[in-house]
Amino acid sequence: MFEFQITAQSGRARTATFATPHGAVQTPMFMPVGTQGTVKGISPQELTEIGSQIVLANTYHLLLRPGPELVAVHGGLPGFTAYPGPFLTDSGGFQVMSLGHMRRITEEGVTFKSHLDGSSVYLSPERSVEVQQALGADIIMAFDECPPYPAERDYIQASLERTVRWLERCLTFKSRDDQALFAIVQGGIHSDLRQQSLDATLPFSTPGFAIGGLAVGEGKAEMYAAVEYTAARLPADKPRYLMGVGHPEDLVAGIALGVDMFDCVYPTRTGRFGYALTDDGRLNMNSSAPRTSLEPIDPDCDCYACRHYTRAYLAHLLRAEEMLAPRMLSLHNLRYLHRLVERAREAIRVGRYAEWALSWAARYFKGKPKTDEMSGVPAWFARSVTDDV
Amino acid sequence: MFEFQITAQSGRARTATFATPHGAVQTPMFMPVGTQGTVKGISPQELTEIGSQIVLANTYHLLLRPGPELVAVHGGLPGFTAYPGPFLTDSGGFQVMSLGHMRRITEEGVTFKSHLDGSSVYLSPERSVEVQQALGADIIMAFDECPPYPAERDYIQASLERTVRWLERCLTFKSRDDQALFAIVQGGIHSDLRQQSLDATLPFSTPGFAIGGLAVGEGKAEMYAAVEYTAARLPADKPRYLMGVGHPEDLVAGIALGVDMFDCVYPTRTGRFGYALTDDGRLNMNSSAPRTSLEPIDPDCDCYACRHYTRAYLAHLLRAEEMLAPRMLSLHNLRYLHRLVERAREAIRVGRYAEWALSWAARYFKGKPKTDEMSGVPAWFARSVTDDV
Repeated sequence: MFEFQITAQSGRARTATFATPHGAVQTPMFMPVGTQGTVKGISPQELTEIGSQIVLANTYHLLLRPGPELVAVHGGLPGFTAYPGPFLTDSGGFQVMSLGHMRRITEEGVTFKSHLDGSSVYLSPERSVEVQQALGADIIMAFDECPPYPAERDYIQASLERTVRWLERCLTFKSRDDQALFAIVQGGIHSDLRQQSLDATLPFSTPGFAIGGLAVGEGKAEMYAAVEYTAARLPADKPRYLMGVGHPEDLVAGIALGVDMFDCVYPTRTGRFGYALTDDGRLNMNSSAPRTSLEPIDPDCDCYACRHYTRAYLAHLLRAEEMLAPRMLSLHNLRYLHRLVERAREAIRVGRYAEWALSWAARYFKGKPKTDEMSGVPAWFARSVTDDV
Repeated sequence: MFEFQITAQSGRARTATFATPHGAVQTPMFMPVGTQGTVKGISPQELTEIGSQIVLANTYHLLLRPGPELVAVHGGLPGFTAYPGPFLTDSGGFQVMSLGHMRRITEEGVTFKSHLDGSSVYLSPERSVEVQQALGADIIMAFDECPPYPAERDYIQASLERTVRWLERCLTFKSRDDQALFAIVQGGIHSDLRQQSLDATLPFSTPGFAIGGLAVGEGKAEMYAAVEYTAARLPADKPRYLMGVGHPEDLVAGIALGVDMFDCVYPTRTGRFGYALTDDGRLNMNSSAPRTSLEPIDPDCDCYACRHYTRAYLAHLLRAEEMLAPRMLSLHNLRYLHRLVERAREAIRVGRYAEWALSWAARYFKGKPKTDEMSGVPAWFARSVTDDV
């Protein structure tokens, strides 16, 4: 169980098979976010059809509503949501900080007011694992604190030390053998703090490690320097998960740096707002051009929307505020990211990841600001993809 | 083309096959409403899976947005919407009255202000047919006026006479042979005016006839008296379409009176509001009981929602305002009405329609107000189903 078997490498990028109780998955992979127990607007059957492999759910949200007991009597998230594959639940740490009101953090845990009804709720390492055991995901996350950006060095340091003590308590409390608990490395954008977090976290030998505390407002250059530093120092034989990331360019850069797992609300959220992901960048379906276009969003895409609809029809649905528009754009965007990692895996298998990534990026970034004049791609991207190759 | 072949009768109820350019359909049938070129939240693939046979679209809405030209360059509604089966378009007459502002009705046509942007729009019998030819539905409707309820007798009479003159202009203008134009019988709830409309309309021998001007606020008893009177006087060898109806009990009663086709936004609209149709009546998924129920909405239903989800999960989605809730409840409700007419067709085939209808109604109306103490069903329903049998 939870065996991580690398099948090919290309530079620092690698492709692997990760075994979970609900089936083996191929990495690198993008995990759709089903915050409240549903990927917004998308059915489990559709997730399976577009190549989703693991669905994320949120401990914070499901604790508040409908409560872990109701999910447990359904046999956990697969029974509750009807998605038959593996799940990953985050620990609630990040959401307590970003969504909870009037939170009070102590060594013991966090008390906060629910964003739904203002009621007082308590989360601790033990309570988070208890809830995650009731939710029954295959991969559960350590209860951590994710400092905001910017934050004082001293605060980041104190916080990461507490996160390590919380990790130990999570592991002590955890009783289910069919769930893998991943530790989370913190330390912000400071290499020495990342190193300190690594030194304290790696000895726990959890079946996977996450890189936390990024994509919270720092710049791309700082973020990818931290990803590069951390990923290079995580064990090669365990999956590496970059939390809350990302956009297409983040996946391609992160994979180059050796990241295996990603999650983000971006594809569904930007879809609901009327944007479609393509190899040429993000297409604004609210603009005037798509209204008369008889082309699909992406002629190379095999999603239901691209096989059946013109841009003009989808633009009509958007203007008419029809539910089918956010549904279809979310579906397409998820499929786009799944196809992107499928192409990345193939490039790794044939040992040409950097070449593929730069070729993909040349088209994706074409005509966009902040690209380097020589390479045609942003400096942070070029550095992530080509350094070390 | 447009052959209507009755295969069984039971009392006044009948089941038939109706041939259209996009395939043959079985009547009696319920037609989902896709006002703006989409059944709200439901994909064409799902419509096919749940047994939808014809989809309705609205001339008024599609004329205003995106305009008939855009639909025409897609090859009509099937190409635009990706629903491969037959379509029916209404003429816009009803919507001009209910949605247009500051409308001015003359013998020539109707000028009104768009409910979208206030622009001035003109519809006439000729323009309505022109637009419906561009939309390309298999069945198109005559441009009529549907008087409000209540209305003066004199107004209803003048209106129905104009509707007949408009029908003649529609038929004169119509040039496509692959579209069947249905005439609409008006006359409100007055038998003599219905007769007058019938006398003037039937000689046009259109391939089907609609009963218009009902379900606009009159009571059930008055409505079904008018349906009974009109349906009995329409030609037996042509399809009869009761416009804008209905609820489950309306379908069962209307079929008993010899109606073949129904349409209504009810299943999708009530689904979006959190209500589920069942043989026990309408289930309020917003109430407290479903929140902890591990049963499906309806154990006899074969829709995706009933095969995969508990009431508790769907109630959670509703409270969490997740898009999957209106999508799944709309899907279930459409499937419920399709299953209802499938059961009705079977009851007709075995010659026991009234018996089946009363048995269905005894459960459906159980414990509800306005039911007759003896029969357990409302008087208007019992009269529709049993009179003449």
